This record gives sequence, structure tokens and C-alpha cells, in this order.
Amino acid sequence: MIAARLHSIGDPSHLRVEETPAPEPAAGEVRVRLHAAALNRRDAFITRGLYPGIALPCTPGSDGCGAVDALGAGVSGLRCGDEVVLDPMLGWGPNRRIWAEGSGILGMPHPGTLAQFVCVPAQNVYARPAHLDIERAAALPLAGLTAYRALITRARLQAGETVLIPGIGSGVQSFALLFAKAIGARAIVTSSSDEKLERARALGADVTVNYAADPQWFKALKGAGPIDAAIDGSGGETLARILDLVRPGGRVAIYGGTGGDAKIRPFSIFWKQLDILGSSMGSPEDFRDMLALVSEKRIEPVVGAVFPLADIVAAVERLESGANFGKVVVRID
Amino acid sequence: MIAARLHSIGDPSHLRVEETPAPEPAAGEVRVRLHAAALNRRDAFITRGLYPGIALPCTPGSDGCGAVDALGAGVSGLRCGDEVVLDPMLGWGPNRRIWAEGSGILGMPHPGTLAQFVCVPAQNVYARPAHLDIERAAALPLAGLTAYRALITRARLQAGETVLIPGIGSGVQSFALLFAKAIGARAIVTSSSDEKLERARALGADVTVNYAADPQWFKALKGAGPIDAAIDGSGGETLARILDLVRPGGRVAIYGGTGGDAKIRPFSIFWKQLDILGSSMGSPEDFRDMLALVSEKRIEPVVGAVFPLADIVAAVERLESGANFGKVVVRID
Repeated sequence: MIAARLHSIGDPSHLRVEETPAPEPAAGEVRVRLHAAALNRRDAFITRGLYPGIALPCTPGSDGCGAVDALGAGVSGLRCGDEVVLDPMLGWGPNRRIWAEGSGILGMPHPGTLAQFVCVPAQNVYARPAHLDIERAAALPLAGLTAYRALITRARLQAGETVLIPGIGSGVQSFALLFAKAIGARAIVTSSSDEKLERARALGADVTVNYAADPQWFKALKGAGPIDAAIDGSGGETLARILDLVRPGGRVAIYGGTGGDAKIRPFSIFWKQLDILGSSMGSPEDFRDMLALVSEKRIEPVVGAVFPLADIVAAVERLESGANFGKVVVRID
Repeated sequence: MIAARLHSIGDPSHLRVEETPAPEPAAGEVRVRLHAAALNRRDAFITRGLYPGIALPCTPGSDGCGAVDALGAGVSGLRCGDEVVLDPMLGWGPNRRIWAEGSGILGMPHPGTLAQFVCVPAQNVYARPAHLDIERAAALPLAGLTAYRALITRARLQAGETVLIPGIGSGVQSFALLFAKAIGARAIVTSSSDEKLERARALGADVTVNYAADPQWFKALKGAGPIDAAIDGSGGETLARILDLVRPGGRVAIYGGTGGDAKIRPFSIFWKQLDILGSSMGSPEDFRDMLALVSEKRIEPVVGAVFPLADIVAAVERLESGANFGKVVVRID
């Protein structure tokens, strides 16, 4: 089969599209013929060696959509040809609160979705939401799961509440906006790009703020009514601002830290009795509930760019550019 | 009556013990003849102007124990002579999760307990736990409430779990140790003082670490088994260490930040999916539940020093010295 493989660390240009043997499903596994995958920052980090426990060679890719192609021993309830999306979280375990020791994400070391075929445990296979085409379905798994767990499971966002989504544009933040609006919440988004803010308004954002145009942006938000919750993947100075902005008794979900270490004032946290809630990936229940919300509300994931697998290097570079709004999808013929 | 009053900002020496009119209980209030009070960092901060909204002159003091002396209109269920302790939180409101706007703490601007008489709403008056003498009962309110809410209500510490209590010695941290042991948890404490660690062992601490003697103290703790929860009032570097030490899925309650801003790694928070839970003071339910635990387990608050009201300046200086283990109590004759 054809796959995008990494044999050495460096940058995205080290990815090679090459022939490699198709995997055989072990007992309890399903083999899926992939039609589309989607990229996450994790894939770019792996090419640069910025991820713990990198094992080479590897096939990255956590998001996939395709058709069941072969069943391992003992698998029931699935048939070849079923159109599916994949829960990228392997071995989460029975505790909804936290992953089990030894759990991991599809796509390094477990061979990932930037390939014509992938084998995963049968319980990671879910029916493709009927209203989604292949590309939008492929965009869903890891970013949708991350946003759902952070915003709904961890930060417990409710209808009628207001959520702050800083740095709109990434896959997770665009899903957070979609989910917030789908459940009836009010969304405040920030970006340094007026174009991204325009896109966010089209997706339902209620208040948009260009933080590059106004270094005092956070002061403007202090008059925008109480902010019940926030979801942050950047850390750094943004996180400190968020802690100042959220109302007493509010919740802040943290799912990443691309902006590095954060200098925080304990006063904001203890005086306002904030809940700061770390979140990463999600449990099987989170994935199931996320798919149910997407289907019920007919949510359309935002696809910002589509590349063929042969152009995987350009696709990862597009992701890294930060210019994208929504997900970068990879077509696999 | 005699009271310790502050007419100007500067330092603890600005406190004056002087005659001032005794207060009259308004409708719904109770007047209490105080026999003992206890100090909190808040009192010292007020003398130095390091507290929001300072109104002068004022009578500080949040903790008090004494006897009901007069009842305002409409008060029932209490009688003159009842021995009581005071819930120092005024106007918390109906939401257990967070105080209501306009709530405050006894002792500035509302006249406090460093006086022969104080008036408080009747619902702030609770029977003195029968096993406690006056000094220990006076030591209980604000530090006990703060520790209880942070450790039990917010961090949800359970029997059989392990809690990290850094910087043992303060009132709140010594209550946290007592409460942790009372509910059947395991306690790891740290201090820069071997004497304080010895005292902590006598109170039941299971593991003690002198962080001044070993700059790599946190490495030693990595082998001490999983740490389920922590309670911190210092912020600064300590908080960053705590976030690294607590197990995946663990909880960290923050009730203060005497050590200043904290530089934190978002990775610890999101990867381990920590709950970081700001806490300050406590709800009426927290106070009631704290008293119930103290009575049921016959917990003895730690009193580190006792001063007469006439020596209030020395008492606050003792608190500020950091040399104390447990509470500084003030006798009021």
C-alpha cells in the first residue's frame, strides 16, 4: 500500500510517500481502507522530534475516514464496506476521568492514517455521521474529541452561558465554536486576523476581537458581560489574560500550550475560585457523545484545505503556517 | 469596650488598643462577648495596606469565640450565655460554588473580633464544639474553613488517598494536615524547618521533607507513590513543583499566593488532565461541615502562641515572623 512515512527527524519535508506492506488485522481489530485523513499539530511535532517517545520509522496520522475492509478474529457487529470514522484514542481504559497508563494516540508508534490501510481495535470504529462527506468526516476525530472533552466534559459549558475562545482558527478552536453554538451558548472569539474573525462570525461567533489591532483587547472584553468559561490551547500570556477575564466561579479548560510557559497570578485563581481543568484527547464516551452531538445538530466541521496524499509535505507545511482556518484534510485514493 | 483598632496604614505597630463604643445588635444580629480571637495573614496585610478596599479606622479580626451577650430583633434559637464560635464569612449567599457579590469577611470593613464585643448576623453563630477550650475554639474559624473548603469541598480528598501539603506551619496548612488525617488520608508535608516537620509528624504526617536541606526535594517525592491531591497557599515556584508532582487526574487546590506569581508549564496541566481549583473562605455549608468533622473526630486545632489583647502588636509580629506552627491566639479579658 501507499503511506506517508517518517524515517528520520527534522521537519515535514522528511515525510516520504512510499510503498509499504498493508497491515493485517489482529484478533479484535478491524482493517479500514482510508479515503481521507486529517492533520493535527501532533503530526508536525513528530516530524520535528517535538513529541515524547518517537519511534522510527512511523506512519503518522490520527484522523481517518474510510470503509471497513477486513475483520480480525472475534470481531462482530461490523461488515466490510461499512463507512466509518476512527476514534484516535487507543487504550483509554475504564476511567472516564483519565487515560490508563500505556494508552496512546493513533499514528506513532501505532501506524496511523496517512496510508491506504490502517488496523485499529474494533471498538475504535464508529459509523460515519450520515450528513458528512468523506472530507468533513475525516476532519472530525482528534480535534473534535479534544474540543468536546475540553469544552463540554471538562468545562461543562451550558446553554445560555458565554465562552471565550481565544486564537480562533485551529481545528480544536473551530470545533469549540461549532459545539458552543450547537448547544446554545454565546461565543466570544479572538484572533490576530480579521479574515479569521469574519469566518468565525459566519460560523456563529457572537463577539469577535482582533487582539493584534488592539493591545488592550482584554479591557474591551471586561465590558462584554460575564464570561463563564474559556478554552485555551496556547498557554503563555493568553492564559494569564483568560484567568483575569473569566467570572468568579468560572471554568477554564486547557488542552495545549503552544505558546509556552505561562506566568499566572494565583490571586485570580483563588479569589475567583476558578476551576482550571486540564484536558487531553478524550474517553470513548467523549467520542461517542461528540459524534452524537455532531449528528443531532448536523454540525459541519470546517475544512480549510485539502491535499492529495502525494502532497503530504505541502499539507503539513500548510498546517504549520497557521494561515489555515479549520482542518487540513488529506485525500487518499 | 476595649478593641484593637487601626487608624492608619503602615505595619502592625499601627494597631492601637483603645476604648471604643460597644456595638448594638441590629435586627437579625447577635452581640457576642469575645473571650478569644485568632490572627490570620489577612490581619497583618490590612495593617500594611496590602488588602483591597481598606476602610479606616477599623477593628480587624476574623476569628472569635465567646458567649452570646445580646440578641437583635427577630433572633430566635439562641440565648444569652450560649458559648459560640463565629463563621467569619458575611453574606456568602445561596450559591455553594461561589460567594455573592458584596460578600466579605468579618474584620474590616465590618468590625472584627479583636475587641470585647462583636455583632454578627445570627446565622454566623455556631455552638462551640464541646471538646474544645476557648483558645482552640478561637483558632478554628477562618483557617479551618479555608482548609476544609480547599481540601474537602474543592479538592475532594478521600480516605486512602495521598495529599501533598507544602510549607506546613501556617494555620491553614496545619488544619489541612489535621483534616486529611481525620478522614483517613495519607499526608506528605514539606517545610524548611526540621522542628516544624517534627511537629507535623506528631500530628500524623506520614512523609516529611525538608526542602531547604535538599534542593532536589521534589525528586525524592517522585518515588513516594502517587500524589492524588495537593493544597497550596504560596504560589510561586512551589506551585509549579506541585503541578509536576501530582498524579494524572489529580487535584490541586489553591487558596493563596503569598509567594507571588507562578510560572507554570501548561503541559503538566493538560497532559495529566489536572483539576486546579481556586478556593477562598467557604460557604455556610462548608463551615457547618467543618465544625461537624472537628466535633466528630475530636480534632484539636494547633495553637502556637497566645497573647493578651494588650500585646496585639507582638501577636501580629509573631504571625508575620513565620516562626509559628499553628495559630496565633489573642486572649480577650
